[in-house]
Amino acid sequence: MKPAPGRAIGVALLGCGTVGGEVVRLLTQQAGELEARVGAPVRLAGIAVRRPHRHPDVPQDLLTTEASELVTRDDVDVVVEVIGGIEPARSLLLAALRAGRGVVTANKELLAEQGADLFAAADASGADLYFEAAVAGAIPLLRPLRESLAGDRISRITGIVNGTTNYILSAMDASGAGYAETLQEASQLGYAEADPSADVDGYDAASKAAILASLAFHTRVTSADVHREGIAELNATDVAAARQLGRTVKLLAICERISEPDGSGGVTESVSARVYPAMIPLSHPLAGVSGAYNAVYVEADAAGALMFYGQGAGGAPTASAVLGDLVAVARNRVAGGHGPRESAYAELPVRTMGETPTSYHVSLDVTDRPGVLAQVAQVFAEHGVSISVVRQAEHADEDDMAIRRPRGASLVIVTHIASDAALRSTVDKVAGLDAVREVVSVMRVEGEVS
Amino acid sequence: MKPAPGRAIGVALLGCGTVGGEVVRLLTQQAGELEARVGAPVRLAGIAVRRPHRHPDVPQDLLTTEASELVTRDDVDVVVEVIGGIEPARSLLLAALRAGRGVVTANKELLAEQGADLFAAADASGADLYFEAAVAGAIPLLRPLRESLAGDRISRITGIVNGTTNYILSAMDASGAGYAETLQEASQLGYAEADPSADVDGYDAASKAAILASLAFHTRVTSADVHREGIAELNATDVAAARQLGRTVKLLAICERISEPDGSGGVTESVSARVYPAMIPLSHPLAGVSGAYNAVYVEADAAGALMFYGQGAGGAPTASAVLGDLVAVARNRVAGGHGPRESAYAELPVRTMGETPTSYHVSLDVTDRPGVLAQVAQVFAEHGVSISVVRQAEHADEDDMAIRRPRGASLVIVTHIASDAALRSTVDKVAGLDAVREVVSVMRVEGEVS
Repeated sequence: MKPAPGRAIGVALLGCGTVGGEVVRLLTQQAGELEARVGAPVRLAGIAVRRPHRHPDVPQDLLTTEASELVTRDDVDVVVEVIGGIEPARSLLLAALRAGRGVVTANKELLAEQGADLFAAADASGADLYFEAAVAGAIPLLRPLRESLAGDRISRITGIVNGTTNYILSAMDASGAGYAETLQEASQLGYAEADPSADVDGYDAASKAAILASLAFHTRVTSADVHREGIAELNATDVAAARQLGRTVKLLAICERISEPDGSGGVTESVSARVYPAMIPLSHPLAGVSGAYNAVYVEADAAGALMFYGQGAGGAPTASAVLGDLVAVARNRVAGGHGPRESAYAELPVRTMGETPTSYHVSLDVTDRPGVLAQVAQVFAEHGVSISVVRQAEHADEDDMAIRRPRGASLVIVTHIASDAALRSTVDKVAGLDAVREVVSVMRVEGEVS
Repeated sequence: MKPAPGRAIGVALLGCGTVGGEVVRLLTQQAGELEARVGAPVRLAGIAVRRPHRHPDVPQDLLTTEASELVTRDDVDVVVEVIGGIEPARSLLLAALRAGRGVVTANKELLAEQGADLFAAADASGADLYFEAAVAGAIPLLRPLRESLAGDRISRITGIVNGTTNYILSAMDASGAGYAETLQEASQLGYAEADPSADVDGYDAASKAAILASLAFHTRVTSADVHREGIAELNATDVAAARQLGRTVKLLAICERISEPDGSGGVTESVSARVYPAMIPLSHPLAGVSGAYNAVYVEADAAGALMFYGQGAGGAPTASAVLGDLVAVARNRVAGGHGPRESAYAELPVRTMGETPTSYHVSLDVTDRPGVLAQVAQVFAEHGVSISVVRQAEHADEDDMAIRRPRGASLVIVTHIASDAALRSTVDKVAGLDAVREVVSVMRVEGEVS
């Protein structure tokens, strides 16, 4: 649907919180530049909110409570959605797409859960659906994945995509403090929400992992497919253990393409999408990403390693990503044509976590007598898990001279890659050994050069 | 010009060196995926080379020496140019664009010198002109600048865009060795060309700076507009001095938007594009970019700070960027529509280096007697240059007890921002003072949080 020459591109804004307010500001302040870039004026046609009296700072004549009427109005070409959550965003965007309106959304939850319906509606009417702001805020990431790397083959994405958890983990690493204490500080400083569950339990990162995996592997991955572990179980010991091994702990969203021999000379492919805290080497480019920053590390066959770094949240950064998408959709309207469609042609199977190859770091407190390592190693061997590194040390705080008393020692094991299920049962079995006094820390290890 | 439904998109490849060979390999190996992404088969229609017998590894029936005939052939939709240099690339691409063929090129030199002609030809015929591979190899950078940040306002780009010089500077920093010695090692390891001038004298980085500044500021900037200094004058002392100050030396390509009061209540804007070695703080995200890697740090009003990191050169990474562009151009052909056009609407004036605000680090060897600092500070004040940091230390290797002999001291000065011309004449004047025994090192300072 091409507007008449010279006609303005009409924009309907759904929601007017922090991000929406910034979008209004940028649309107004940069009207001239936007017109030059789009090839036609870009005009705000209406702003749908629930309580108009709460928005004294935006043009009052544009405010409406009738969102469903607004999204299909004749003077609306593009709908920008910054409400968040599933409903009413879902119904509004479906109605807009079915009526051929372009859509720009920052709604990661909706896309990760029910993206397929939106893409189908966009495909059917030929409308554009853009969503750069849904993952890693202002960082231009989805466009490179969808377009720049379109001739390459992505093997893996490892991302720090949640600023709150990265802030907490950076602070724990710097101060040596525990999780609960650091979370409280982060809340006081405004880095964590009053109810931090969406962040610290990994829901937010899991939505983003679903979106990234779908784009990278041309396969439909929903948030339900993403294995998810948060950071609430982490303690100061885990973080200190990582540091001792030249590693640091990050909450990672990992999207991986797994290729394996199919037994008859060919290769079967599958994908894994997962979120959990893991140790990465200090030399890894993601290790230096601290505070509330986000960064996404992409490995592709031809391009090699790439990293995208920036602010993952906040009104202005998110609004910048929304405006970039808005320019693209508006320009497509003016010039004809449309952006890339959903691409799910590969339809690769998604692995469960148990079937996913990972590697573990296990730190044990064991009694210090001969044969303990042999016993532990035997359990790993029985589960087909091969050991990469072992470090054994007597506890410095116990006395060498008390010969008759069973002494303690610490045993740190890093495994080679094995199925996550095998690793988990190995640790369960090891924990039950008489000689093992405590499993001090178990954490996955990522980003090693193998 | 839209091909008939179902018809293959024909690709003419100009040049078949390292990058071209990789393009052929990817086009063949990923034919199925490319077809799915483009919506039509992508078929190599011909490969223009000068000496066909030197290319035994590509399909022989596609080889031709008649490049000018190939680029406008009926079965060619897109021309991919990886020859490099000005001619014959320029004439061939102009002919292709005039005939409505889409163009993908990795030719930074041509774009930076004569991009305007190419853009004009593309505009006139409605053909696409894409060039992601021309800057920072595989790193998706131009597309984000042209599209993702299209609704934002870029204030500054600071880039490590030449892998050879970054490799040399990283090695000097790690080993403490001098420039000549390190360059020789880099050549032996294949990180520097036999004639390293294009890299070490900053020509390569200057072409990239011109392209980046043009895109970021919607202003035509050519390589002739870019102030250029290379790394050949650097010595181990400069690198060590940076390290002592918690900084590191990088060859930077800097593109900056400068806003100043115009004296009547408004603001005048201009741009600066320049390449030189400079000190940046170790805490800056660019400081950790070592070896042959490239990274580009972008500051935008709404998005804040972003960084793009990856491999800046090499056959496969560059081919990945070429393929991404090829998919975009091919998809535009299939779907109708076209990519973003040259955007030079802002037409901001480009500053000379002398008029550009910068800040200097100056390290002096002075005689250690009272009043030297006052004398030096007086010269700075006379030139209107304000001093930010002064560090004064007696030389440890000279003897405190030799009271009558004039002792030496080192005086390190970091200035506030002033015009480069004022800074330069200040240093010249200071160098002439009796009390100054030697100007040990003068380097610009970038990336400070002010």
